[in-house]
Amino acid sequence: MKPAVRKPYAVGIKRREEILEAALEIFSVQGYRGAALADIAARVGLTLAGVLHYFSSKEEILATVLQRRDEGLTPWFVDTWAETGSFSSAVHELMVHSMQSPHVLRLFVTMSAESTDPSHPSHEYFQQRYRSSREHFGEVLRQAKELGQVQPAVSGPVLMAVLDGLQLQWLLDPTFDLLGELDGYLQTIAVNPGPLS
Amino acid sequence: MKPAVRKPYAVGIKRREEILEAALEIFSVQGYRGAALADIAARVGLTLAGVLHYFSSKEEILATVLQRRDEGLTPWFVDTWAETGSFSSAVHELMVHSMQSPHVLRLFVTMSAESTDPSHPSHEYFQQRYRSSREHFGEVLRQAKELGQVQPAVSGPVLMAVLDGLQLQWLLDPTFDLLGELDGYLQTIAVNPGPLS
Repeated sequence: MKPAVRKPYAVGIKRREEILEAALEIFSVQGYRGAALADIAARVGLTLAGVLHYFSSKEEILATVLQRRDEGLTPWFVDTWAETGSFSSAVHELMVHSMQSPHVLRLFVTMSAESTDPSHPSHEYFQQRYRSSREHFGEVLRQAKELGQVQPAVSGPVLMAVLDGLQLQWLLDPTFDLLGELDGYLQTIAVNPGPLS
Repeated sequence: MKPAVRKPYAVGIKRREEILEAALEIFSVQGYRGAALADIAARVGLTLAGVLHYFSSKEEILATVLQRRDEGLTPWFVDTWAETGSFSSAVHELMVHSMQSPHVLRLFVTMSAESTDPSHPSHEYFQQRYRSSREHFGEVLRQAKELGQVQPAVSGPVLMAVLDGLQLQWLLDPTFDLLGELDGYLQTIAVNPGPLS
């Protein structure tokens, strides 16, 4: 019996993955509102009903896409920090990484802003997302301070605000020197900042 | 002739003001998308056609509302700075002032995020708004540095990012300690910061 049960389960997992990958690609290019479930279905060779077998709505697909990207970023950041040995370099690399997918970044910026409306379907998701991010950034900063890489007065929510706010300015205006501004800020919070240019 | 020409002109100015005030009030409560031009018209005792005599669209009203609020904030900030004598206190008061109108704040946060899409009707307005804000903040910070109130390494875009990003976190979660985080940040950029709590 076991193989017969396992196989469809594994196929289901694989299908879900395919749908999520297709959705991220389509949301990134067409935006959330511009994307139709039918386009996502067509990309993975399913009917609309086929997609709805795995996800109840476009909204649920979006929430899962966002969540998965968030989950992926944390280990990515920790690995990059371990490799570079520098908190500032890891934050810089995180931004370089994000800038490679401006559509995904735009999706996050727009969805988080829209979700400030308490009646928005993603309100709770983003509220929880920011709470988790504050905890995560708080823990990461605590370690960076212990290692003597960041000044004691730096707070997680402020660092998150700097990243969010600079990204917004860059998305609005691609000529804005996002990395230059970020590096300038990172120098001000480092324990032994070098001379500012 | 002159009085005859002047009177309708003055009436037109007054009407425009009334429409803008009504629109700000309605946008603030119902949001931009939820607000109908007809509601704005009803509030000022005009027909829809009457409103369209002064503004071509809801979008144009929104752009004017945003622009006027922006214009009002600059002299307000300069006055508050002069009164308190402290750059940090003026920024703190600016935030207190903004928090008194969470709907207006939400309107700005949502519109600026949506406008990152180059095809959005407000894209150019927000692009220009952020460029102007960077110039304005740059000039204000230059003065604050000359007065020895702010550390030389602080940049206008980063300060703007901190304000935008913290506001977003607060709008998503009213239990977030926006003013506490802002004050903590302001202490880190002050020239002679007091002890951090």
